[in-house]
Amino acid sequence: MTARVYVSPKKTVLDPQGQTIRAALQGRGYASVGNVRQGKVFEVEVSGDPAQARKDLEEIARTILANPVIEEYRVEWPEN
Amino acid sequence: MTARVYVSPKKTVLDPQGQTIRAALQGRGYASVGNVRQGKVFEVEVSGDPAQARKDLEEIARTILANPVIEEYRVEWPEN
Repeated sequence: MTARVYVSPKKTVLDPQGQTIRAALQGRGYASVGNVRQGKVFEVEVSGDPAQARKDLEEIARTILANPVIEEYRVEWPEN
Repeated sequence: MTARVYVSPKKTVLDPQGQTIRAALQGRGYASVGNVRQGKVFEVEVSGDPAQARKDLEEIARTILANPVIEEYRVEWPEN
């Protein structure tokens, strides 16, 4: 079973990568593009007890994959 | 309207970041974790004509945000 963990900068945190991409796109003539924010996505294969896997992955996302001071995260399971 | 562009390494391409994360998680005792692949996600705000915005964003994803030699991409719209 493969879950996805999305990590993105909090709305209140500057995202210089996103701002650079936005400026580059507008410079190339894509005038309809507004704000861009860049985040990360982790595709994680897990096995074993589903309840335990969910608990583990939530903990992994919060403590390892994301930095909760400046980032927010979301765990998505295929069944959802 | 905010669309999401997901960019991830092709299945046939080595993903050293993902392998490092997997090794770190297993070293911390998360034995149920299998393969991990790390990708990028871009949240892009677009305005104007929806049909043109879809066409533009598809082009942006293919030519700018992703490197089609080693990466695959997927554009997701909120209405979908």
